[in-house]
Amino acid sequence: MKEQEFLQEIKEIELLNEALALLEWDSQTGMPEASSEFRGETVGYLSGISFERSVGPKIQEALTYFETHQDELSELGLSVYKKTKENYELNHSIPAERMQAYNIALTNAHAAWLKARKAKDFAEMKNEIQTLIAFLKEFIPYWKKDETTNYDVLLNQYEPGLTVEKLDEIFAQVKTGIMEIRATIAEKGTVPRTDFLSRRVTKEQQRTFVMGVAQQLGYDFTRGRLDDTVHPFMLDLNRNDARITTRWDETNFSMATFGVIHEAGHGIYEQSIDPKYDHTPLSTGASMGIHESQSLFNEIIIGSNKQFWEKQFPFFKECTAGAFDDIDFETFYDSLKETKASLVRIEADSLTYPLHIIIRYEIEKMIFNENVSIDELSQIWNDKYEEYLGIRPENDLEGIVQDVHWSGGSFGYFPSYALGYMYAAQLRHAMGKEIDVDTILASDDYSPIKNWLTEHIHQYGASRKPNQLILDATGEALNPQYLIDYMKSIYYDVYKINE
Amino acid sequence: MKEQEFLQEIKEIELLNEALALLEWDSQTGMPEASSEFRGETVGYLSGISFERSVGPKIQEALTYFETHQDELSELGLSVYKKTKENYELNHSIPAERMQAYNIALTNAHAAWLKARKAKDFAEMKNEIQTLIAFLKEFIPYWKKDETTNYDVLLNQYEPGLTVEKLDEIFAQVKTGIMEIRATIAEKGTVPRTDFLSRRVTKEQQRTFVMGVAQQLGYDFTRGRLDDTVHPFMLDLNRNDARITTRWDETNFSMATFGVIHEAGHGIYEQSIDPKYDHTPLSTGASMGIHESQSLFNEIIIGSNKQFWEKQFPFFKECTAGAFDDIDFETFYDSLKETKASLVRIEADSLTYPLHIIIRYEIEKMIFNENVSIDELSQIWNDKYEEYLGIRPENDLEGIVQDVHWSGGSFGYFPSYALGYMYAAQLRHAMGKEIDVDTILASDDYSPIKNWLTEHIHQYGASRKPNQLILDATGEALNPQYLIDYMKSIYYDVYKINE
Repeated sequence: MKEQEFLQEIKEIELLNEALALLEWDSQTGMPEASSEFRGETVGYLSGISFERSVGPKIQEALTYFETHQDELSELGLSVYKKTKENYELNHSIPAERMQAYNIALTNAHAAWLKARKAKDFAEMKNEIQTLIAFLKEFIPYWKKDETTNYDVLLNQYEPGLTVEKLDEIFAQVKTGIMEIRATIAEKGTVPRTDFLSRRVTKEQQRTFVMGVAQQLGYDFTRGRLDDTVHPFMLDLNRNDARITTRWDETNFSMATFGVIHEAGHGIYEQSIDPKYDHTPLSTGASMGIHESQSLFNEIIIGSNKQFWEKQFPFFKECTAGAFDDIDFETFYDSLKETKASLVRIEADSLTYPLHIIIRYEIEKMIFNENVSIDELSQIWNDKYEEYLGIRPENDLEGIVQDVHWSGGSFGYFPSYALGYMYAAQLRHAMGKEIDVDTILASDDYSPIKNWLTEHIHQYGASRKPNQLILDATGEALNPQYLIDYMKSIYYDVYKINE
Repeated sequence: MKEQEFLQEIKEIELLNEALALLEWDSQTGMPEASSEFRGETVGYLSGISFERSVGPKIQEALTYFETHQDELSELGLSVYKKTKENYELNHSIPAERMQAYNIALTNAHAAWLKARKAKDFAEMKNEIQTLIAFLKEFIPYWKKDETTNYDVLLNQYEPGLTVEKLDEIFAQVKTGIMEIRATIAEKGTVPRTDFLSRRVTKEQQRTFVMGVAQQLGYDFTRGRLDDTVHPFMLDLNRNDARITTRWDETNFSMATFGVIHEAGHGIYEQSIDPKYDHTPLSTGASMGIHESQSLFNEIIIGSNKQFWEKQFPFFKECTAGAFDDIDFETFYDSLKETKASLVRIEADSLTYPLHIIIRYEIEKMIFNENVSIDELSQIWNDKYEEYLGIRPENDLEGIVQDVHWSGGSFGYFPSYALGYMYAAQLRHAMGKEIDVDTILASDDYSPIKNWLTEHIHQYGASRKPNQLILDATGEALNPQYLIDYMKSIYYDVYKINE
């Protein structure tokens, strides 16, 4: 086996995946709905080929051969070999018939989730979720390497190197920090005016504004595009084709504004990966958490920055044709950073969002490490919302049934969102030691920010582990204090609190 | 070998082709240009798999087995078997290394064509075209079954059953007919007013109008969509996903109007094929010529119909917000049917268009049946334009270099366009014996027209040969007189000629 032969096999799998990516993008943007049955067949067939190749004889042969001939691999070849081995072990260690049974259980769980949403009752999906949990508990021993707890194994699939031990400590600190900020705001804060946020801004006006902003932030529209969708996402076919999507609400411009800024962060990441990783599994983000750190850097770091908005406000007023002429800049800026407890994660503001994640983390940990009964979950969920956010769901649709993740088997995924917040704030802090971020955001040229992120994060693709990337970029391991400090500075300013 | 196994193999090839269709659609509509190199790799790889499967061991086994076991096939299975055999013989009879060499020659010819366009000089692509011709002459014996002449073999690839013998006769009649109409118009005709055709109609106004018209004609937008492109086309992923495209010119609304009506005809065809042919090579049009007959039925039969336009004119005026309020219906209608000799085929009107095709046919026939020298072609081309249309190209870009077809190896393809004209007129005549087309086009419900075409043409997909379809639908073989009669009636009306 030659390195070249191995890389060619990998490339062909990536080419299949690129076709699959386009099929997925099209399904979620412009495909006529009547075509969905046909699409299901096409996607099923192609992903079958792709999966078979990824665990097929040629890959097996390569992994066996290079296990003992790593010296024959170039630096790139070695990185690809390692990543391929990881993916192979994740995909191939489960007996095929159990994996098939699991896939059927996933289909049932998704159907049950839709029913539970309709009934607003977790009971409707309880059995199916229980089945998925049983499958995952059966699979964990196959996946386990040197992790300490069962839940660690799941966490590692989304964020390599992450453990319950670390997260317990980090999330305790984040929870305390956020709850303190919330208590202070409740006690002494001045609530910003927000009535004008619902003024009508046409889709075209919003488009002009957010496309302008995304471009200034470094998203390259000649190597991407912006489309409409129901559930916004970024999807990359390759580094020259990283597409973003959004939905629009003409009486709530801030949704698409922050949505596009967020997705553009994902897109900039993919667009900036080193071309040497083309057609390999390294030409993608390092992890879910690191990917979110890039989208959230845009959305909550830049998107909360006063200099940034002061610079953009005239452009916003121009795009909206006078509809906000009576609003002064401070009032406008403050309105964007209102914080308010909410029951639904995807509607949460940037201060309360991590609490939604921590609740899910704590419950997932109870499921996999403490064998909590499925019958208690709904009550636990509601109690935690009451404790952390001071509000209680009136039914399960406002509560435990709201997210699609569990019915998709994605336990261990939620923490990545919170990691993204913390990584973003930590990167902002490290960046600030080298460049003057506020001054740059007040200027006409944001490129130093993008360049810093490309130098420290983007270029490496998936060739480095998340914890290594963060350590190299910031000089220290994950430290949640930067997020707490950042939130404090933003929200105390908006809520006029002088400490 | 069981029929089911054969049909499963066929289905998987079709699923690959469906992914390829989406990749193609995306390349021509929204793909970021920077992605084209990646796209080339993906398409190259997937079409390689698709081709290998289509001539692979499973298909070979099925063709061998069912050759002697046709009784084991259902009616559908038998139709699929026959079509598969045809495709196999077309694809597999050429030695692989010669086919590869030909593909390289095609790439070179395309590059040469681009150079020749720039230089406006056929000399720049002469050698490459010569090479392609030599390849085709080498291949023809492999493809030849019972055809009489070399050129017949090429004609048959696009329109099964077509021969030089038939075409010579048909085209002679068409040429005489059109030239007579043109002479009469030149002598006695009143040229219609057309100045207002360049009035500004915004893209959105045009869109509203043509989408409304396409829908009324039977194009189902829930099983298709309309996108922007440089070179308009219809592309079907499956019968529930037949996409059409157009380009827009705000100072020439009639381009997109007739363009969309044309593509909608292709789309309606694909949308109306019997679902029993799903996932087989029969779920497509019967031939290039029959496909064009459906698009041209829309464009030149319905699109030239006075009742149709009288009905649509108020809608057109509404969509264009008063810009044509000073134009009475007769003046408007006449403007759409102006005829004028032109050098460029794709800009030709419906009366002169067939002459452009006949010129190409005559030259292709000289190349393959009479071994004319490549050095004479440019001169022959120009002489024929002078003879048939009364105008002479000043350079090869206005002449022999204008079309992409020859540099793509598509000799024998052009006649299909003219067949489409003749089939459309013949279908119109046959339809008129059963339903009152003019009255229907003056009404709110055009469905009887679409239903007639679905019953006689669409539903069969590629399960019947073109000549059989036309015979069954109209009761006679291809007869060009209907086209001549139709053109005469339309143009004599517009040019106010009373015979």
